[in-house]
Amino acid sequence: MHRDRPTFVSHLECSMTGERYEADRLHGLSRVGRPLLVRYELEALGQAVSRDAIAARPTDLWRWRELLPVRRTASIVSLGEIETPLVPIPRSGGPGAIVKDEGRLPTGSFKARGLVMAVAMARELGVTRIAMPTNGNAGAALAAYAARCGIETVVLCPEETPEVNVREIAAQGARVWRVNGQIDECGAIVARGAAEGRWFDFSTLKEPYRIEGKKTMGLELAAQFGWELPDAIFYPTGGGTGLIGMWKAFDEMERLGWIGSKRPRMYAVQASGCAPIVRAFEAGVDHAERWEDAATVAAGIRVPRAVGDFLILRAVRESGGRALAVGDPAILTAVDEAARKDGLLLCPEGGATLAAYRQALADGLVDPEERTVLFNCATGLKYPMPPADNWLDRNAEIDLASL
Amino acid sequence: MHRDRPTFVSHLECSMTGERYEADRLHGLSRVGRPLLVRYELEALGQAVSRDAIAARPTDLWRWRELLPVRRTASIVSLGEIETPLVPIPRSGGPGAIVKDEGRLPTGSFKARGLVMAVAMARELGVTRIAMPTNGNAGAALAAYAARCGIETVVLCPEETPEVNVREIAAQGARVWRVNGQIDECGAIVARGAAEGRWFDFSTLKEPYRIEGKKTMGLELAAQFGWELPDAIFYPTGGGTGLIGMWKAFDEMERLGWIGSKRPRMYAVQASGCAPIVRAFEAGVDHAERWEDAATVAAGIRVPRAVGDFLILRAVRESGGRALAVGDPAILTAVDEAARKDGLLLCPEGGATLAAYRQALADGLVDPEERTVLFNCATGLKYPMPPADNWLDRNAEIDLASL
Ligand SMILES: Cc1ncc(COP(=O)(O)O)c(C=O)c1O
Ligand SMILES: Cc1ncc(COP(=O)(O)O)c(C=O)c1O
Repeated sequence: MHRDRPTFVSHLECSMTGERYEADRLHGLSRVGRPLLVRYELEALGQAVSRDAIAARPTDLWRWRELLPVRRTASIVSLGEIETPLVPIPRSGGPGAIVKDEGRLPTGSFKARGLVMAVAMARELGVTRIAMPTNGNAGAALAAYAARCGIETVVLCPEETPEVNVREIAAQGARVWRVNGQIDECGAIVARGAAEGRWFDFSTLKEPYRIEGKKTMGLELAAQFGWELPDAIFYPTGGGTGLIGMWKAFDEMERLGWIGSKRPRMYAVQASGCAPIVRAFEAGVDHAERWEDAATVAAGIRVPRAVGDFLILRAVRESGGRALAVGDPAILTAVDEAARKDGLLLCPEGGATLAAYRQALADGLVDPEERTVLFNCATGLKYPMPPADNWLDRNAEIDLASL
Repeated sequence: MHRDRPTFVSHLECSMTGERYEADRLHGLSRVGRPLLVRYELEALGQAVSRDAIAARPTDLWRWRELLPVRRTASIVSLGEIETPLVPIPRSGGPGAIVKDEGRLPTGSFKARGLVMAVAMARELGVTRIAMPTNGNAGAALAAYAARCGIETVVLCPEETPEVNVREIAAQGARVWRVNGQIDECGAIVARGAAEGRWFDFSTLKEPYRIEGKKTMGLELAAQFGWELPDAIFYPTGGGTGLIGMWKAFDEMERLGWIGSKRPRMYAVQASGCAPIVRAFEAGVDHAERWEDAATVAAGIRVPRAVGDFLILRAVRESGGRALAVGDPAILTAVDEAARKDGLLLCPEGGATLAAYRQALADGLVDPEERTVLFNCATGLKYPMPPADNWLDRNAEIDLASL
């Protein structure tokens, strides 16, 4: 499945200043402390492969190989990164609502996309020890891929990380700690250890290859929608890697002539209890201040401060979209209704996109007939569900009519 | 994705006596109380579609449409039934061990294959109320698909059904009860209600279309292995629908000329605490007696009595395989090692196949280099994992060297 293919990375570049950095080297943030973006020889790439050739390949993340940074196929550790399906939710969402169900990826979340790429690159570049702050799913994906190739991992989770995540990280062979703090506070500890040379820092966007993996969400959407993008995308935004990655994918595909200039309106969805990007969007500023006392049931978007804030805000604004906040009660109602009416169990972050979508419909931001993609970033099976306590005694007289 | 296609069902037939039954009718068991099998006009089918045409279609369960019983595309309720990936587990299994990771299907288990088909047929044939006994995953899949098309569902679970299953069934809008008994005892209550006309009985193999859905596992394996089947298959066997379904698929494909006569050796894996098929296999008999006091951590294979016992045993024997039992400790060790060494979280039933495989290697039944498929029938995320209780105080002096 993972054939050798020509690769086209030319260099990396600071997302803020445009300063160039060499390819095929270990990198963290740029000199000004901002994310690095991978750049490709798009002209040569376009001559080497067409969108139709890619569409004819096996339907997984590695079909996009020429647009990805991994040079050597032998560096890839794979757990089966399938293309995730589009699932309409007409009853709970409406006629235009389509869920991209990322819970089908390895370790049950879209974090697998970023981490399969970052771990392959780390392996290619000789890393043997990695540390990461995580709200849970990224740590689980890191642990799984690292386990497969014998890379040691240290994972720090905020204390309110879902129990299932901490357990799966440990089960998959990582060393994991809960820390009394938020994800950026865990990140500070990881950064300290990295500065001391104890490990490589795998924080969101500090490591430049995760975003290339997340980019495949945008590539897949283009292929799945017949090379014409949907009208709107609702993305639950923590660090924002996926949103930034999709935006980058759209740009690269347009340069390749694979899609036109039409872009979906990008809606960055946050929880009312942690909405730094929404606050910055509404204030019309480029950078978001830290959100104090962050709290939401949707752990994946409990991110008080995002190093790529300006990239998220830029994509949202250029697209004509918005940043939207939804409360926990609306999130839980959305999860409940999608399951009950459409048989689809969303994660809380997926519930947030559905809640925001319904609010956007009500506010007239989105037309019900517009093709709108809602990201469900993890399988709902990871998260607590309400108990169901009906008992039946088979030795007693059972009133079948009451069942 | 789900285009209209020509269909080729000719009739159904009793798996024991060969007696014919009409197609496009509601059916339960045959007159002698055994499963019905769907039969196709294979000659016409082979003229209408080639294996290469199918391989060129979108990679999901519906690419096999001509080999499936659903007549009208409008009957299909889909949640995105992707082709499940093959994931090698070289460290915990060995060079020949390949997991077919069925946990990626809707509702996180391979039960989605059977239920998506059975619900489509129920809808096509006008059913409005369904009941089912289930060890959990089948009920979850039924609830999800039925919710999407407004079919009412009543689900009865043995008391030891995993908590997650009971909750997801309820979340997806079904009415669910725990019953003090095993799955066949729940089944007796369902049968009683069906006899009274309260609902349609969706028990494993009592309803003839689930097996057609499960058959797609065999079809997919053929396509994924380049139309040459693997050397051996380890299947965790409860009711055995999947094993019977794959065997039927192989037969149909051979008649179509899509594969040759080579068959994988089929290994039916059960738990030592509930091994009726193993006991019958070893006794050389065609039918299995009920297993009393069934108990195992692998709920999906806690099935004391299987109405398709003779079909399971026949396939296993014809293939040159065996029925094998493994203890709960070996199951849990296998789950642990696959996660820790290969980053793949198996369900307990998947752990059973790995445990049985390792035992078979040790006993010389399987060569380590043989291409062997181990079924992981559900995502491991559904099942309890050991706790991981490391705490770090970010306000204290942290000894980074100890992490
Ligand atoms: C389920 C889920 N949704 C959304 C997010 C946010 O993703 P991003 O960092 O790309 O904004 C996360 C991140 O942890 C997550 O786990
Ligand atoms: C996870 C899992 N594995 C295996 C089985 C057994 O499947 P079958 O009835 O096809 O033998 C089940 C059935 O409940 C299951 O849920």
